[in-house]
Amino acid sequence: MSDNKKTVLIVGLGLLGGSLGMALRNSSWRRLGWTRRKEIREWALQENVVDATDDDVEQLLATADLTVICLPVPHIIDFIRNHANDWRAGAVVTDIGSVKEVIVNCGESYLRPEGVHFVGSHPMAGTEKSGPAAAFPTLYRNAETLITPIQQTNQAALDIVTHFWRDIGTKTVTIAPREHDLLVAHTSHISHLLALALTQTALDCPEPEQARRYSACATGFRDTSRISSSSPVMWREIIEHNQSAILTAMQEFENHWRRLRATIEKRDFDGLEQEFGNGKELRDNWLKYKNFKKTGAPEWRTYN
Amino acid sequence: MSDNKKTVLIVGLGLLGGSLGMALRNSSWRRLGWTRRKEIREWALQENVVDATDDDVEQLLATADLTVICLPVPHIIDFIRNHANDWRAGAVVTDIGSVKEVIVNCGESYLRPEGVHFVGSHPMAGTEKSGPAAAFPTLYRNAETLITPIQQTNQAALDIVTHFWRDIGTKTVTIAPREHDLLVAHTSHISHLLALALTQTALDCPEPEQARRYSACATGFRDTSRISSSSPVMWREIIEHNQSAILTAMQEFENHWRRLRATIEKRDFDGLEQEFGNGKELRDNWLKYKNFKKTGAPEWRTYN
Repeated sequence: MSDNKKTVLIVGLGLLGGSLGMALRNSSWRRLGWTRRKEIREWALQENVVDATDDDVEQLLATADLTVICLPVPHIIDFIRNHANDWRAGAVVTDIGSVKEVIVNCGESYLRPEGVHFVGSHPMAGTEKSGPAAAFPTLYRNAETLITPIQQTNQAALDIVTHFWRDIGTKTVTIAPREHDLLVAHTSHISHLLALALTQTALDCPEPEQARRYSACATGFRDTSRISSSSPVMWREIIEHNQSAILTAMQEFENHWRRLRATIEKRDFDGLEQEFGNGKELRDNWLKYKNFKKTGAPEWRTYN
Repeated sequence: MSDNKKTVLIVGLGLLGGSLGMALRNSSWRRLGWTRRKEIREWALQENVVDATDDDVEQLLATADLTVICLPVPHIIDFIRNHANDWRAGAVVTDIGSVKEVIVNCGESYLRPEGVHFVGSHPMAGTEKSGPAAAFPTLYRNAETLITPIQQTNQAALDIVTHFWRDIGTKTVTIAPREHDLLVAHTSHISHLLALALTQTALDCPEPEQARRYSACATGFRDTSRISSSSPVMWREIIEHNQSAILTAMQEFENHWRRLRATIEKRDFDGLEQEFGNGKELRDNWLKYKNFKKTGAPEWRTYN
């Protein structure tokens, strides 16, 4: 460490953590990495996902300027609790968890007393795959990162975390933890429940009907249902930690759904066409804003 | 027409018809094409989408061995009614409409008296785009075509239609028209209503909340909502012609949805994890069966 590079420690080297290490190749950050399984640590070193690793996570925590915890939500909480006094005072810690209130509260309870600065983050990036083998360097290319400071958050720590996410090319948006959880319930979490129920509606039936359903599911179904191939444990955990916001979003979905059903029941097809027009306009405008760039993701990503 | 090629007439040169002409390049079929707008007919000729066209559709209908009507559902019905006695006796007519009972009934009523053989088809192919500019030669690459003969269908005509769809590389499946309509209500039509209601849930809100929703919608939303960018008129018409089957599929979706909501309400997260596991298994098995091949589709198709 003879240069002026800051040191980032990536804890967890799955889809999010592994891709983060890859995205930071040739960056201004020196990358440390750690994950529970030794063979993944070795893989990460061989594949230039990280610059250094160590069997002893405490060793790494003691030297990191910034730590990004890339674990499933309950494991983020456990990791903070178990390692609260392994960081040096003044270190900055963030995470990638899909819920924020419970994690930020944990950071406040366990890290603030140690003089360690916690700032919650949620980069809106992912695929239906998980694990190191699913990682790729451009996962974050089109992403925006929601950062969730609170009143007490240290400003310098917030700046470090904000610049970190900008360094890998994401846009950053600041939002309070509870508002974040309600926001992503509407934009992300609910779509996992819808994709699940759609998959069950289309495919959960006995033979020989299922064989015909197989034939009649095409690319529309493939894409609309894609995220129902995500990790069941991960999504159980996210919803478990965001129950009330998700029930609110489900209620809003049901309001729209019931209105659509009533429109169809009373054969108000002019009204239905207006609804479809409204949906198209909403999505097309969003897509224009988003202006997704090609990511060069592995082929399974774009044709699955 | 000095060779032995059979002549296929493609009526309508939008996404489905245009892509069909492109898929038939260098095939054993001589391609005639017709659509209402002269500039599209000229485009199709210039771009080798068809081998020949004519301002006068009756001229073309009189010479076609097989006609494939690639129009929106109500236009298919109108076209059959208006041109019933323009085909020569013994000609074979099929279509690409997303509903079949109403179209097959129309074929029986108007074409059978003229000695013209109608066989309903529904290639499970499409994107959220429409029109000639959205057409591409590999649209049908991974598709299965549902063919809907009835008791009275002429066997030779059924064979011609079946071989036609196999010639462009689709798998063919035979199913009765009414069963088809119930089938696709579950596998295709309902997903358009879900994508619509999801888009409204995620994005239909006033500023400044909408700006935050924009940021928090990412690739999961992009894919789950993709088909809500489809043509509002087209989907209004499909649902208008398949109302009762769609209400049945909506009811089945609601049964799954209510069960999921109750599971979350009572905090039965082990049960929720089992539901997610069930959905993942259903979709992953279907995906394995489908084994989608790369289509070389335009980039908007794969990153939109």
